[in-house]
Amino acid sequence: MDVNADLAEGFGRWELGDDTALLDIVSSANVACGFHAGDPRTLRRACSGAAARGVAVGAQVGYRDLAGFGRRFIDVDPGELVDEVIYQIGALDALARVAGTAVTYVKPHGALYNTIVSHTAQAEAVVEAVRRFRPGMAVLGLAGSEWLRLAEQSGLDVHREAFADRAYTPEGTLVPRGRPGAVLHDAELIADRCLRIVRGRPIEAVDGTPLSLSPDSLCVHGDTPDAVEIARAVRRKLTEQGTVIEPFAPPPTGPVGR
Amino acid sequence: MDVNADLAEGFGRWELGDDTALLDIVSSANVACGFHAGDPRTLRRACSGAAARGVAVGAQVGYRDLAGFGRRFIDVDPGELVDEVIYQIGALDALARVAGTAVTYVKPHGALYNTIVSHTAQAEAVVEAVRRFRPGMAVLGLAGSEWLRLAEQSGLDVHREAFADRAYTPEGTLVPRGRPGAVLHDAELIADRCLRIVRGRPIEAVDGTPLSLSPDSLCVHGDTPDAVEIARAVRRKLTEQGTVIEPFAPPPTGPVGR
Amino acid sequence: MDVNADLAEGFGRWELGDDTALLDIVSSANVACGFHAGDPRTLRRACSGAAARGVAVGAQVGYRDLAGFGRRFIDVDPGELVDEVIYQIGALDALARVAGTAVTYVKPHGALYNTIVSHTAQAEAVVEAVRRFRPGMAVLGLAGSEWLRLAEQSGLDVHREAFADRAYTPEGTLVPRGRPGAVLHDAELIADRCLRIVRGRPIEAVDGTPLSLSPDSLCVHGDTPDAVEIARAVRRKLTEQGTVIEPFAPPPTGPVGR
Amino acid sequence: MDVNADLAEGFGRWELGDDTALLDIVSSANVACGFHAGDPRTLRRACSGAAARGVAVGAQVGYRDLAGFGRRFIDVDPGELVDEVIYQIGALDALARVAGTAVTYVKPHGALYNTIVSHTAQAEAVVEAVRRFRPGMAVLGLAGSEWLRLAEQSGLDVHREAFADRAYTPEGTLVPRGRPGAVLHDAELIADRCLRIVRGRPIEAVDGTPLSLSPDSLCVHGDTPDAVEIARAVRRKLTEQGTVIEPFAPPPTGPVGR
Repeated sequence: MDVNADLAEGFGRWELGDDTALLDIVSSANVACGFHAGDPRTLRRACSGAAARGVAVGAQVGYRDLAGFGRRFIDVDPGELVDEVIYQIGALDALARVAGTAVTYVKPHGALYNTIVSHTAQAEAVVEAVRRFRPGMAVLGLAGSEWLRLAEQSGLDVHREAFADRAYTPEGTLVPRGRPGAVLHDAELIADRCLRIVRGRPIEAVDGTPLSLSPDSLCVHGDTPDAVEIARAVRRKLTEQGTVIEPFAPPPTGPVGR
Repeated sequence: MDVNADLAEGFGRWELGDDTALLDIVSSANVACGFHAGDPRTLRRACSGAAARGVAVGAQVGYRDLAGFGRRFIDVDPGELVDEVIYQIGALDALARVAGTAVTYVKPHGALYNTIVSHTAQAEAVVEAVRRFRPGMAVLGLAGSEWLRLAEQSGLDVHREAFADRAYTPEGTLVPRGRPGAVLHDAELIADRCLRIVRGRPIEAVDGTPLSLSPDSLCVHGDTPDAVEIARAVRRKLTEQGTVIEPFAPPPTGPVGR
Repeated sequence: MDVNADLAEGFGRWELGDDTALLDIVSSANVACGFHAGDPRTLRRACSGAAARGVAVGAQVGYRDLAGFGRRFIDVDPGELVDEVIYQIGALDALARVAGTAVTYVKPHGALYNTIVSHTAQAEAVVEAVRRFRPGMAVLGLAGSEWLRLAEQSGLDVHREAFADRAYTPEGTLVPRGRPGAVLHDAELIADRCLRIVRGRPIEAVDGTPLSLSPDSLCVHGDTPDAVEIARAVRRKLTEQGTVIEPFAPPPTGPVGR
Repeated sequence: MDVNADLAEGFGRWELGDDTALLDIVSSANVACGFHAGDPRTLRRACSGAAARGVAVGAQVGYRDLAGFGRRFIDVDPGELVDEVIYQIGALDALARVAGTAVTYVKPHGALYNTIVSHTAQAEAVVEAVRRFRPGMAVLGLAGSEWLRLAEQSGLDVHREAFADRAYTPEGTLVPRGRPGAVLHDAELIADRCLRIVRGRPIEAVDGTPLSLSPDSLCVHGDTPDAVEIARAVRRKLTEQGTVIEPFAPPPTGPVGR
């Protein structure tokens, strides 16, 4: 099973999250690409840390919106979005290669992630960008999203994630943030849920209904000390119980020169 | 002989220069990389135009300064500069590859270009970035500059340029802008100077002294209609007189996939 | 009758439109405020030009989006939008006062202009910002828009504009750009339409239906040489026929110190 | 005696420093203005907190450099710098007025602060900007700096600060960061030094030489929990010993409407 988290989300003087701690927990690092967060030095440092630990580097592409941290929908022209996504993947990939690894997958961030669950034109744009960057490249997203449907059609290598600390509706969608119980906080309970998911057993939806998820990756967070503790508990539980934490899109093992 | 010019220097709604006209004149296009100018769509369009004509694509890397168009010295930490330059080259290279070509050389822009003529720490940073991106990569710069000296030491493939429309001192340095006669405006005269340079004959320095330049590339401009006319006159004169205009760092001829 | 146009829409090295020409044509200058266009020097220069000619200065506030020139909807939190709009008006007003005038009205730009025609939460945010900046301040917008309705309720001094060079539907809304005939190009015809509007006579909607508009201001453009010619023709026609071109929100006549 | 600290230095998602804690400690808040840090919402919140406590609001103007947090020298044209500084003061002042207070002084930030200690052209630009914004306005800076000398000549109301947690040379300049002992960490010792300064007694320079400072303000920091503790200790010590902590440029007491 893969475990993924967002990294490199600081910018210049501003730090966010504990990248070093996360790199010892996850198998896949969604590294910001500079448009919503992440200056080049922070990107390279995250890539170097990932390379040293065999953690896969994914391009966490987002809207061009530092002020909004990529969390606000922008009605960007799909043609421009294609080129913006290619630009971001290429920039990160160059730094990843300098760090001895390479970008092996793409996971959109924030409002772009949410938008392309249903916005066909922007979903097509992201698929087009990834496909142009490298045909058949791995992508990570939400099960049932428009963009993964299109990605699959385009021959991309599609992977689906579940959220370790989020409650689910009986239909398998996330309980929206802000609703009671939407976010789970108990590290033990979360770790147990993750173990059930990994073993293919149903978890409880928010109303108690049994719900089966079969993700390729578990998403954890690292932007608060509590979140890091939860992520650590998830990893400990899974590995203690015999699950191997490994990337769905493994980093290159040989030289990465151009 | 190579002829180079700056391209893709618009940003979003703002256009600058006539990229289409220049692509029919030059053999090497210094394409902006988004830090001082150049949105991703503009970059890709320039790369596509270059690919279609066999024009080489160079990374015109600059300071992160849209408001100043990269024309103001920034005392950026050399370690950060390394990563910023890698980021820019990588971003452009991804778009170039999607356009069927690749970045084959690097030419810094504006204040960065001028700074690394003498600023050793920043010069080292740019050299380090290019070398990390691809050992032995071609670079284009000012004869006698600190950064080309260091680039040569580092095994980069060093090329020197002369400026078609600028007056030279007897020592072979540029007459600073603002001094009388610093910039030449007569298209015929400029074209004749370029022909002399190409044939290895001396030109006249600003005081009349004969001066021999032996550049690998001639730099022309395209940011005004007059500049484009001059550039066109230079190309016409050279080709009429039998000079082949061709890139010093030719674009890839086969597939450019990753 | 007032005539308004957008000014100061360059940014750093990038110029856009002919501010000097427009300042001799309009009575109200919608000056960009730096979020979608307009560096401080350009703002001050436009304000100085306006002050010298008795042209009113309006704050052309927009989304924070230089890359998109403020033309893309951003789903910005209304609370943040309030503060962003105050920030922009304040910045411009300081430069206007230094130039001997002051901001006397607000006209939102681009996607923000279009969004608050119907998006209540963002419309409320803009109204709140203007009201907080100065109760009863003048605003300029589209007749029938949600934001002018709310502005009126809040005690702002509401003014409505018509577009000199755009076709109208029989219902009095603009024919969307891209539809045949949406934009008018014949300077004489446009000037005649404007004269009819000023005299309170009906113009022809796109289908020939007579349509009465009674705007407080006519909007002209200056981003192409043709647009400036049209704007000039409008002014000439109106003044020849006895219409006084004067601002609906006149600039201060005395000292503007704080 | 005045105590000042930097506030509102976050940006969007990124937080920095504990503004709420600092507002209970200082009498003057140097509020960032958006060019090197500080989004409009953060500015307004800091102004509201200052207004509620009678803390003075100063404009912490800086270079346009979010990526570098305003800590890198930029060779900006002095004419542009004038307008950029006016823009920043005006933007903050508008938000301050909405919060029921007003900007009563200016303190440049980071690299701009350091540059105008000796760079005459940029120092003149900042003085010109402040003077144009409001003749006779209060400014806060380093004793002996070029910019305070010019500010005084221009009729600005000049105030000098000492740094609570920094070691001084026998000549009264700061021991450069990075040198041993440059930054003090012991809260009690720092508070005692501040008390001596307030009482007009000499402190020890880094080499033990007695050194008399007579500042108008003490600068404390709030970007780490330790720094906040030190600032709190300084305030406690001074007030316990009878010093009144009060702004050198008091906020307006009546209505602040335009």
